[in-house]
Amino acid sequence: MRLTIIGGGPGGYTAAFAAAGKGCDVTLIENSALGGVCLNRGCIPTKTIRASADALGMASRLAEYGIRGCETPGIDLHGVRKRKESVTAILKGGLEKNCAHLKITCLQGLAKIVDARTVIVHSDAGDSTVSGDAVIIATGSRILELPGLGFDHKYILNSDDALELETIPSRLVIVGGGVIGCELACIYRAFGSAVTIVEGQDRLLPLPSVDKDISTLLNREMRKQKIKVMTGRTLRDVYVNGGVVHGTVAASPFVDTAASVEQREESIEAEMILVTVGRLPATEGLGLEEAGIAVDRRGWITVNDRLETSVSGIYAIGDILGPSHIMLAHVAAMEGLCVVDSLLGESGPMNYEIVPSAIFTVPEIGEVGLSESQARDAYPHVVCGMVQMRELGKAHAMGELPGLFKIVADADMGRVLGVHIAGAHASDLIAEAGFALKAKATVSDIAATIHAHPTLAEGLFEAARITMHAAAK
Amino acid sequence: MRLTIIGGGPGGYTAAFAAAGKGCDVTLIENSALGGVCLNRGCIPTKTIRASADALGMASRLAEYGIRGCETPGIDLHGVRKRKESVTAILKGGLEKNCAHLKITCLQGLAKIVDARTVIVHSDAGDSTVSGDAVIIATGSRILELPGLGFDHKYILNSDDALELETIPSRLVIVGGGVIGCELACIYRAFGSAVTIVEGQDRLLPLPSVDKDISTLLNREMRKQKIKVMTGRTLRDVYVNGGVVHGTVAASPFVDTAASVEQREESIEAEMILVTVGRLPATEGLGLEEAGIAVDRRGWITVNDRLETSVSGIYAIGDILGPSHIMLAHVAAMEGLCVVDSLLGESGPMNYEIVPSAIFTVPEIGEVGLSESQARDAYPHVVCGMVQMRELGKAHAMGELPGLFKIVADADMGRVLGVHIAGAHASDLIAEAGFALKAKATVSDIAATIHAHPTLAEGLFEAARITMHAAAK
Repeated sequence: MRLTIIGGGPGGYTAAFAAAGKGCDVTLIENSALGGVCLNRGCIPTKTIRASADALGMASRLAEYGIRGCETPGIDLHGVRKRKESVTAILKGGLEKNCAHLKITCLQGLAKIVDARTVIVHSDAGDSTVSGDAVIIATGSRILELPGLGFDHKYILNSDDALELETIPSRLVIVGGGVIGCELACIYRAFGSAVTIVEGQDRLLPLPSVDKDISTLLNREMRKQKIKVMTGRTLRDVYVNGGVVHGTVAASPFVDTAASVEQREESIEAEMILVTVGRLPATEGLGLEEAGIAVDRRGWITVNDRLETSVSGIYAIGDILGPSHIMLAHVAAMEGLCVVDSLLGESGPMNYEIVPSAIFTVPEIGEVGLSESQARDAYPHVVCGMVQMRELGKAHAMGELPGLFKIVADADMGRVLGVHIAGAHASDLIAEAGFALKAKATVSDIAATIHAHPTLAEGLFEAARITMHAAAK
Repeated sequence: MRLTIIGGGPGGYTAAFAAAGKGCDVTLIENSALGGVCLNRGCIPTKTIRASADALGMASRLAEYGIRGCETPGIDLHGVRKRKESVTAILKGGLEKNCAHLKITCLQGLAKIVDARTVIVHSDAGDSTVSGDAVIIATGSRILELPGLGFDHKYILNSDDALELETIPSRLVIVGGGVIGCELACIYRAFGSAVTIVEGQDRLLPLPSVDKDISTLLNREMRKQKIKVMTGRTLRDVYVNGGVVHGTVAASPFVDTAASVEQREESIEAEMILVTVGRLPATEGLGLEEAGIAVDRRGWITVNDRLETSVSGIYAIGDILGPSHIMLAHVAAMEGLCVVDSLLGESGPMNYEIVPSAIFTVPEIGEVGLSESQARDAYPHVVCGMVQMRELGKAHAMGELPGLFKIVADADMGRVLGVHIAGAHASDLIAEAGFALKAKATVSDIAATIHAHPTLAEGLFEAARITMHAAAK
């Protein structure tokens, strides 16, 4: 099988490695850098910079642990960027090595799809034609520019700019309290900026799968860090004058709020505004229309449950499928594995039921399955159990107290429907919950499993015991 | 049901809380401090001090993360001890509050068992008699003094002393490369001691359930930290002269080695020697013999699979059952829950099949299930899959590269038999593996579960994919 993959992000390279590992002849076409948004401008650079923010946070708490000699820690932004570049270079090198090892043909250029057997690659060196038996489109998404908030990359920034800053803005306004907005708010706050988040919905992380208790806890913890959170508000009338960005915070059209505080308009000033909302399908030059590949009204590619587009033999994975397919790197990777298996006749349709999410705010968040409100919509009897991070001995030993563990379960069958964790290691702790949901486990199953002491994972065990007792009542 | 529990460690208080929560009338007798060895001289104090060692480790790496102003970090041992005392006090306060809330009668004194219905408590205030329907013995274990290595608590120390040190020894010799020895070696090395471990067996962590690849990795990482590891050796002829401890390192009687380097005797000097081997049953004053409660030849209490001793109505849990029942706080706690359930007619026998362990060395270790060599003894076809921590993007972003994920599986059925993790967050990451083993999962089950990116938990997913492919060959 000869497979042509367009896009070298997590979906594309995971599919390429899997297919080549199973003996396929793979061509991987990437127009920019191998690793995609995830490695170059997304997950990895933010988590690398976040590690510096965490390090600075720890530096300022060292006396608490009995460590002397670090009374005035400060950030060296040049060092932070250098580390980030070094990490992405190492990981990109790893991908290249793996491509070479697996004899994947890597082409640099802009791909244009003719049909399932033919892709033309435009590059500086001229055009070339790739022939194959099937095509996987994995070109991802790109940043959306909001009307009235056009990026000048100096005062009005997008998330790419935020990872390349040369100076720490003394005042930073972030438009959007979603995952990217909240993560960058915590990073820049740690670096010393006075940060304000303006979020149009009525809470932080306004995704249906994010449990309300998690939003509330994050809001409280952000306020403790002195991040100003303005929910139910939008930013408008933005202009730059004398090196300062001015704008007006006004009531949001997205929430039907009667709170007078949210109705009142107020002017706001900042050194920089960071816009973190909205993504567009990255379909430029692909020739979707000529090839007859159907898209929805927003331009995202539509696929069947085996991720095949309207054209037989052409598949699509990752962000290019839009929000209806969950735009996350680990979903793209699993979609890539799924398509490869499907092409080799090995597997069934992609399953979107159990998709964990990891949000690297302070505190960190990990969630999987249904939020309490989603569960109450879907099940007649729902029971929840909650344990605070500070109830765990290990949290005290580590000095990491903020956070919670919440289990949402079906009260009738005891089945775990969702797990929501905030606090240290939450992104790793959610893995057990993800496996439990995948295994269709009950809270009793978790409560019957010995968890090592002293660990933070005991929180899930304790939450399971509480949920089990609540369900029994 | 009136329940008398002797011993306020993790087994005792977990049983007390569970029983009182279910409406039992509980008396908890403790001769020393609530929380037992775990809270007062074990798990919690070591992990609290370890947090200071970690903080110092991070302090010395801050420049790597782009943090300035911490060029010469140092340890303030007084601050470390103060923090440890504060953490244990908070947790002890939590236990006391919980006892009060659940109306548990807490008695301070030495318990003597008359029969299943009668326990006498000797205290400074005089004797009192507690009547009940059943007794749970949870008195734990105490430190064993080796011949020729009697503790003077100044030059020759036990693990209790190691948590109360007023100075950092410039040279420290640790007898025993087990869990306690290795954990304290990493802590004191971080604090600046030159540390030598003398271990009688042929590897570090010489427990059958610890996979050999984990021992090897720990040995390598310890050497990188400049901890001297001498395996297959014992320490003898120890004496103190002029404020220095002298001893002779000689071939171990426990290993049949021909390596000349291990046969050669050499003298060793140190400021202090820390002996970390051996525990004894803490049965002093219990009156086991008069009450007719059977013990094995080493003095550990013997029980049936419902943890009932030879005397009907008298149960035993925790360390007092000896190594055959796995001496870990989380095992004691589950045994406590098990006995309470059993007394209330709710549950089956205690299950020791899936017991995770967490070892707080540098790097951290988490293991559950069978080691590769145990698996090869028990199954005809065993397959393993291994992923290095440095293969994960998150490990690079965090700057935490040492470590590995290893899955041991039955090649015929694909069933996961054991999981061994070393590296950052290993003690929390092992929880997913513990649940997978408990659920009798296959490697395909783990490989079919989406793991969030970028997280360290992806290591288990990748190891599962590798194991699955290895099994398919």
